[in-house]
Amino acid sequence: MSSMQTHRQVILASRPEGIPQAQHFRIVEVPAPLPGPGQLRVRNRWLSVEPAMRGWVSAVANYAEPVPLGGVMRAFAAGHVDMSNHPDWPVGTPVTGLFGWQELAVVEPAQIQRRVDDGDLPLSTALGVMGINGVTAHYGLLEIGQPQPGDTVVVSTAAGAVGSVVGQIARIRGCRTVGIAGGEAKRQLCLQRFGYDVALDYKAPGFEPALQRACEGGVNVYFDNTAGAISDAVMAQLAVGARVVICGTASVASWQPAPLGPRVERHLLVKRARMQGFVIFDHPQHGDVARADLQRWIREGRLQYVEEVLDGLEQAPDAIAGLYRGENLGKRLIRL
Amino acid sequence: MSSMQTHRQVILASRPEGIPQAQHFRIVEVPAPLPGPGQLRVRNRWLSVEPAMRGWVSAVANYAEPVPLGGVMRAFAAGHVDMSNHPDWPVGTPVTGLFGWQELAVVEPAQIQRRVDDGDLPLSTALGVMGINGVTAHYGLLEIGQPQPGDTVVVSTAAGAVGSVVGQIARIRGCRTVGIAGGEAKRQLCLQRFGYDVALDYKAPGFEPALQRACEGGVNVYFDNTAGAISDAVMAQLAVGARVVICGTASVASWQPAPLGPRVERHLLVKRARMQGFVIFDHPQHGDVARADLQRWIREGRLQYVEEVLDGLEQAPDAIAGLYRGENLGKRLIRL
Repeated sequence: MSSMQTHRQVILASRPEGIPQAQHFRIVEVPAPLPGPGQLRVRNRWLSVEPAMRGWVSAVANYAEPVPLGGVMRAFAAGHVDMSNHPDWPVGTPVTGLFGWQELAVVEPAQIQRRVDDGDLPLSTALGVMGINGVTAHYGLLEIGQPQPGDTVVVSTAAGAVGSVVGQIARIRGCRTVGIAGGEAKRQLCLQRFGYDVALDYKAPGFEPALQRACEGGVNVYFDNTAGAISDAVMAQLAVGARVVICGTASVASWQPAPLGPRVERHLLVKRARMQGFVIFDHPQHGDVARADLQRWIREGRLQYVEEVLDGLEQAPDAIAGLYRGENLGKRLIRL
Repeated sequence: MSSMQTHRQVILASRPEGIPQAQHFRIVEVPAPLPGPGQLRVRNRWLSVEPAMRGWVSAVANYAEPVPLGGVMRAFAAGHVDMSNHPDWPVGTPVTGLFGWQELAVVEPAQIQRRVDDGDLPLSTALGVMGINGVTAHYGLLEIGQPQPGDTVVVSTAAGAVGSVVGQIARIRGCRTVGIAGGEAKRQLCLQRFGYDVALDYKAPGFEPALQRACEGGVNVYFDNTAGAISDAVMAQLAVGARVVICGTASVASWQPAPLGPRVERHLLVKRARMQGFVIFDHPQHGDVARADLQRWIREGRLQYVEEVLDGLEQAPDAIAGLYRGENLGKRLIRL
């Protein structure tokens, strides 16, 4: 492989409305890039698949410039430096960053998110529990959700890459955790791997009364990855002083126009509650803080993670749509 | 009057769904109460009319026990002690508290909200700008909205008892203020008395584009007294890091069931914004802090207030409905 003169990329071929599907991407083979002065080349080993990618390809105003048509799909990746014109980044260094859905990436040192130095943890974890997902969970729950011991913390997409870490951190902090996930397999994962006190399948009959029973004293923190009907059910159970952390809107297929839902103002008023959104890219300084905790908890056996590995770049184009279909169990990764 | 053996009360005759109307109340004449040991009797001079009274008579879960059927309507009032069995509260002391829509109230000292000691300010101000409305505006804007100099602050019911104080405090704090009110008379009041930089009539054609023009750099703080279509228009203009203060829901006739509106999650996420409700009764310690500021600003001529006086207890039953019809200009008071 190291002698190849071409490499493959997944490019954005057309702009989706709503959730990007396989047909919005195309795999192309292009000449292998060479690093210029001061640059280095990364051979990607792992590519990440995130719900947030939907926003990255959207033409609608967002927190980041959209991926241009014909451009390489923006993605976190982890790999090793395989050519280097910079003394600080020798060949073989494990690194992670927004290297894109491609086999090779030529980057400036400033584009490297971090040198992966997580000891015995597999490189793939740099994209999930030790990457953006784990840091997002840590920041959102602790800084915005501010859980207190004894609080009831509800998590939507509770078995997902972010949600599973949220639920476990909440438990470590002494909270009662209620996970909401789609389907019995994910519900079992919540109970058996992620240690939720209660796990509910939102597709099962009787979900709303079951949620009500599970949250009898009210919901102190709701970590929301979905919006939609799940959120409507949780909002009706808020405790006085509740914090609702808006992390994602996985259940909403399109925001153009915004779908209708029951108004939230009266819940917020009567319960003196707060809803707050955040974007983890605003908080780069939080990465080291979060990773110190996450790494320690993993080594202590208190933080579990589950990865779902898809083999080969050709799996990438349909991988985001698959997340939204709910077909994955655990953090979705593409192995090259 | 001091020798009368009876007095009049406004009692809750039936429980409204939504906004209480005149027919939900009844005026009764009952024996004048006498204070027991340690108690005192207050002769009310001013009765308050608040949008929040809708919630106080609602059977739906709320932040306070509902007024019982047949009970005196809960209301802030200001008056003087006219009989006293307590040495700390001599006859003639001006006081305010939840004395109800009635001519006389026998109370324990603990039920007095405060001894009115605002110097030359008229007693009526203890119910408005120096009372719950002013303190609500001060707490909600400064503690929850956290306006910074140069921020654009949007206020709904901008000419109202709370909104008018919010807009003026924001201006004192160096913000650009945009007021939203119903009708040209209120719009003019916003501009001429309350010093808003821009005032918009939400009933006028072209309201939404006008709002967009008025908020070109985005809305940093939205002080929301209405919910509904006004809020939907403002939420679409939030700036990154915006704070939305949920103080009231005047535009919503009934919350059973909650009306539908465009979902807010994506605004909150993309704009890293916050919506937060509060109830001023949770923050009794804030009253003195707020009143010190409010009193100073009034004396300095920087804080204007407008009162609308209805004469006689017989005006009370329809007074709340009138607020929701938007017929008042300024703080609505009943003078006895």
